[in-house]
Order: sequence, then C-alpha cells, then structure tokens
Amino acid sequence: MTDPTSYENRPKISMKPGADKRVHSGHPWAYSNEIEMNEAAKALPSGELVTLLRGDGRTLGAAIFNPHSLIAARVLSRDPSIEVNQRFFERRLQRALKLRERLVDVPYYRLIHAEADGLPGVVVDRFGDVVVCEVSSAGMDRLADALTAAIDAVLKPATILIRGEGNARQMEGLSPMSRFAKGGLEGPIELLENGARFLADPAGGQKTGWFYDQRDNRALTARFSKGGKFLDLYSYTGGFGIQAAVAGATEVLAIDRSEPALNLLKQAAVLNGVEARVTVQRGEAFEVLEQLIADKKRFDVVSADPPAFVKSRKDLNVGSKAYRKLARLAAQAVEPGGILFIASCSHNMPVADFATQVARGIHEGGRSAKQLYATGAAPDHPVHPFLPESAYLKALILQVE
Amino acid sequence: MTDPTSYENRPKISMKPGADKRVHSGHPWAYSNEIEMNEAAKALPSGELVTLLRGDGRTLGAAIFNPHSLIAARVLSRDPSIEVNQRFFERRLQRALKLRERLVDVPYYRLIHAEADGLPGVVVDRFGDVVVCEVSSAGMDRLADALTAAIDAVLKPATILIRGEGNARQMEGLSPMSRFAKGGLEGPIELLENGARFLADPAGGQKTGWFYDQRDNRALTARFSKGGKFLDLYSYTGGFGIQAAVAGATEVLAIDRSEPALNLLKQAAVLNGVEARVTVQRGEAFEVLEQLIADKKRFDVVSADPPAFVKSRKDLNVGSKAYRKLARLAAQAVEPGGILFIASCSHNMPVADFATQVARGIHEGGRSAKQLYATGAAPDHPVHPFLPESAYLKALILQVE
Repeated sequence: MTDPTSYENRPKISMKPGADKRVHSGHPWAYSNEIEMNEAAKALPSGELVTLLRGDGRTLGAAIFNPHSLIAARVLSRDPSIEVNQRFFERRLQRALKLRERLVDVPYYRLIHAEADGLPGVVVDRFGDVVVCEVSSAGMDRLADALTAAIDAVLKPATILIRGEGNARQMEGLSPMSRFAKGGLEGPIELLENGARFLADPAGGQKTGWFYDQRDNRALTARFSKGGKFLDLYSYTGGFGIQAAVAGATEVLAIDRSEPALNLLKQAAVLNGVEARVTVQRGEAFEVLEQLIADKKRFDVVSADPPAFVKSRKDLNVGSKAYRKLARLAAQAVEPGGILFIASCSHNMPVADFATQVARGIHEGGRSAKQLYATGAAPDHPVHPFLPESAYLKALILQVE
Repeated sequence: MTDPTSYENRPKISMKPGADKRVHSGHPWAYSNEIEMNEAAKALPSGELVTLLRGDGRTLGAAIFNPHSLIAARVLSRDPSIEVNQRFFERRLQRALKLRERLVDVPYYRLIHAEADGLPGVVVDRFGDVVVCEVSSAGMDRLADALTAAIDAVLKPATILIRGEGNARQMEGLSPMSRFAKGGLEGPIELLENGARFLADPAGGQKTGWFYDQRDNRALTARFSKGGKFLDLYSYTGGFGIQAAVAGATEVLAIDRSEPALNLLKQAAVLNGVEARVTVQRGEAFEVLEQLIADKKRFDVVSADPPAFVKSRKDLNVGSKAYRKLARLAAQAVEPGGILFIASCSHNMPVADFATQVARGIHEGGRSAKQLYATGAAPDHPVHPFLPESAYLKALILQVE
C-alpha cells in the first residue's frame, strides 16, 4: 500500500532561480510568481503536500502547495522527508502545549497560532475540554482528519469544533464550514481569564468565540481601574470591563452593538459577583462617545478595542481616519490623569501609523498624553520571526492629561 | 524688579509660514530650518525661554530656544503665559510622581523621562532618598537651580546629584558636568527592583548608575528561569542574572567586560542570598559565546542586553550585522525549547530592522524560533506620542527550537 503523503511519492515544485533566497533564509512562504508554475504544478490539487526545491534543484523542505493562491507554498519543515501524518500533528501540538503550560496557568489559551506553531493556516483555541479549531489553508483543510485525530490524542477533549470562514479561506478557494469532529455544544461555555469567569459561544460567536490575544492587555488595563470609573467600548462579551470590575472599578459602562454579546457580558458579571457595578448599553461607540462628551461624563479608564477598521489596503485612508476619530472622542471621555487603552487588530494598519493617528486624535481632542505601553497580542499568539506582519494586534496604553 | 522668565519679557521667535503645521498639530520640537532665524534670534543665549509663534503670528506656546542646536525650540507648554519657575517644576514633578506611584510600588524608578514628562532634556532617576538628575538641553541647564529646588521641595531627598554628559548635551553646546546639588554619596547605593536588591554607583557608573528601563523585561525573563540555567550577557551589575537566580534559576553565568560592574553584581548576589548559584566571568560577549558553543554548553534562558551597536546613523550597517551576529551566537547557546531575550537600546536601529536581523541571525545559527514578546522600556519611561523615535529600547523574547 503506497502512502500518498510519504516523501518518495510527493510532487516536486521548483522555485525560480534568483527568487528562492528569502525562503532559503528562513521565510516560510513562497509566492506564486516565485514558483516555476508549469503545467504539472498548475494541475496539482489545492493543498497538496510537495517537496519544495531551490532554483538549482537543491531541496528547501516539505511544503503544502496551492497553485490557485498568492501564497503558493507554505513550508512545513526544512526536513523534506518529514512524514506529515497524525504523529506529525501530535508532535507540533505537544510542543505548543508545553509552551502554553509555561505561559498560562489554566487550560484556556490559544494552543496553535498558525505558522509560528508550525501549522500554516491553523488556529486552535482551547477552552478547557472544548477545543475550537479554525482552518484557513487548503493544505490543512485536506489534513483536517489527521489534525483532529492528533488533537483528540493529545488533549482528549470532550468536544472538537472545526470552523473555517473569512478572507484567508476564500483566498485559498475554500468555502466556509463548521462541524463537530467530536462531541457537541449546547449553548455558551465557560472560560477563565486572569482569574475572572466568562462565557463564550464558539459555535455562534465571532471567530472562536473569545479573543485570548487581549489577555495581558486586559490585565494591564485592569491594574489602573481600582476605585475608578471604567468605560468599555466595543465590549463584546466583557473581557475588559468585567476584569476591571473584578479589579475594583466602582462603575463599568459597557458598550456594544451586539445584543447577544451584551447578554453574555451580563451573565459574566453575575458569575463574578460584580453585576451591581456593571451597566450595559447597546449602541455604536462613536455615537455613545459623542453623547457622553456632550453630557460631560468622564471615566478614569477608557478602553477601546474596535473591530478592524482597515480590512484591506484600500481602506487604509478611511480606516486611519476612523482610528483618529476614535482616539479624539475617547480621549475626551478620560478624566485628566486617567488612562486610555486603544487597540487596532487590522493586519493592514502599520504600527507606526496607528500610533500617529492616535497621537493626532488625542491632540485634536484638546488633550495631551504620554504613552506608557505599546503592546501586542499575548504570548500564546507567538509571531513567526519572518512574518512580522502576522503581529496584527497593536495596542497603546496612554495617560491622558 | 522685572522677572526675565515672565511672559511679557520673553523674546518672540517665529516659525516660518508653512513650516509650523507639525508643531501646531502637537509635536513638541521646531527644527532650526523651520525658524525665522534672524539676527535677534541668532543672538539669543542658548536655552532662553521664548514665546514661539506660528508663521502668521499666532502663538504656539512657551518654548526653550537654542539657536545653535538642530532642535531649535522645545515647547514647554501650549499656554504661552505659563511661568517657568520652581513652582512650574514642582507641578510637573508632582504629576510625574503620581504616575510612578501607580506604576511601581517602591520608590525606585525613573521619575522624569524628558519630553514625555514635560521637561525636555531632563531625566530624573530616583533611588529612594537619592535622586540623580541628567540634564542635556541648554534650556534646562539654565534652569537647573529651579529644577533642583523643586526636586528638593517635592521629594525631600538626602542627596541630589546632577549629571550631564554624552551626545545630546554636546549637540546643545554644553560641556560635561557632575555635581551634588544636595548631600553627597560615598560609594554605591542600594536599590530594589522586582523584589530583588541591587547596588548602583550613580557617581561612577554608566548614566545614572542603573537601567530601570529593563525592569519589566527582567521580570518577564525571570519568569522563564525557574529550575534552569541562565546566561546573562552584558550583565552590567546583574539586573537580569540576579533576578533570574532569585526566581529560581539553578545556575547563572554573568558575563561583562567591566570589573567594577561584576564586583557590584557579586555583592548583589550576596545581598539576595543567591551567591552559590551565580558565577561571573569577565569577558567580551562574542568571544565567550564562541567558546561556550565550542564547548557545547547550553542554557535554558539566554539574556543579551548589549550597549548600543548603532550609535549614529552611519553605523546602521555595521551595527545591524553586530545584532545579527549576536542573535546567531546567542541562539546557539539556548537549549531547544529555551528562551532568548535580546535587546537593542540604539535610537538609530528601527524596530522592524532589529527584528529582521534577529530572525536572520537565529536562522543562520541553524535554529528556529517563535517570538513571544516584542516589548520596550518599562512605563516609567513614557513616550511622547509625537516622538515615537524616543522609544529607543526594543526587546524580543523568543522561544528557540
């Protein structure tokens, strides 16, 4: 019986001479214009496991290949003969697990963060014995059974949900999907973060149902909240606001457009015994801020964690203005000497530009500030050193005068 | 009696029409080519307090002016009539103090970080009742008496040491200086950081004698050190290594070129009761690393906090290669799965270039890595939002396979 994934049987894909240096130097991606895209290559099914070659025929490693994607090849290993089977996934999961257990003291974290954890196009979030897996590359889509078998073997969870949606998946020619590979879910599940309890709805909510990337930023922001009033803009299910209340904020006002998210937030407030200090208001952040400013309401800490304003490069100008406006309005809602947390999760918003827009916005709001922290995602969202652009989350914590 | 620092008596300095927009938008500096540098302006003494005007004659604020410096005007306040006297400094110190007391729970921190704290060219480090003040702008040099009187009024320290040296001071046309404005010092003083005890020599050591900017990075690095071997490259007086030992590292090897620094490190090891686990070796980091690699010695955590390799823009190429080499060698001294901390304090090394050099170096060393944290200086070193380039410290924490 021949194994189609074994080294000897893999198709060979060549990079163009002169175009292979970046991948040779450690970058994990080859773009389609760097590949000798001959008929044989074009005919390969999306996500085929291949041996990637340099222009001169030397091997670069084992890769997954998609002739229809801009990112044509994603290196899985510099060892071309590596077997890519359940055992392969188990080893990568074990290594990722060992790191997370050093980083986070409860089993609630991002277990796999794509390329940085050696699994291109795969994100795995763990919620205790519920595991939610997002697959966005064709190669990993084809290997989903080995991946879920490995997750089952390593973590033995009650539930494995596999989801796939959004831009990245579309660019790989994949349609949206959502299925349980093991077990099932009936409504929201509970999770722990920085000692507080929350509810997430992996089957119904955004992405995997929770944004672990802000864990450390929530802890930092909560530190400034004791004894003060806290405004949680774009609250979603309450990550920032509830943690501020648990840390001793006297009043928390949480704003979000989503009624289901605010319902989960209210339940989380009860779970943490802080419901008397937490108020929710359904609404659009810009409109609510304008009303708060008109009413001369100010807060000791304002947190603004908006959705991506720059969804693609063509939105950069409009999105930049939106961040600037958000900073202008949010700064005006901060008590003098208080704290502003503001974040951007836009891949396409460069970190320097984000900081500039925030600085201008605050000045336009008639306020001055000092930047205390410039942070990113929590370390269970590691960055591949050659893919700095995958560090999508940028956050600033400023003191506003 | 006329007060030469009062609003009515201040010289007026105009920016050129069309060159004033950046300062109007919140930037605190006007460059010399943006100023109407007429005879009256040129004749002003370095560091004179002036009223800065826009090209059309409207006021921008109160500034300190130096006709002989590239940074000709530094805005002190958007309120042109502000009095700049001891009371002015007291207010800025009080505000800075209030922030530090929220950030750090012992009186050991950077109290004033130049522009971000509203005092251009002034750095104040506090070591309990010893205050060390570095002055590098002509304007603040002239106002040093009011500044030290204010420090005395606000903090009531036993000792105030004023120092000034280095490039920035030279560019302002100031000569090096060091004097006690109050009290004195006999040898090193003790300080507390993250629960560990250290010795600093403000009168004899580098800069103010201690680098508080790495406080949070030392805590992060120490977290990974329990039960492991720790290599502290460029150890100076032991900030990283001693904190790793206190956190439970089984062995710490500290490398530095400076015998006096290593002597203070050894004393700190005794103060913290970890001297049995701390070894020092005088030497040059590159040479020591090459020997360690030849001897196949590896560490669970390697920390590399070198002096600035890029001292000016013309050094960028050579300095970049030095960071790459350091990453290449240091990564090879890390146990698989271990941690590499690597920092650059070069103003002239862009953060993205630093990350790229580190990534390449690690790959050239035959290793792969995932970046867990990209950090900067601790928050008692705030950044003026319009001077992102003042965020000189860049640090990466990576897991190395």
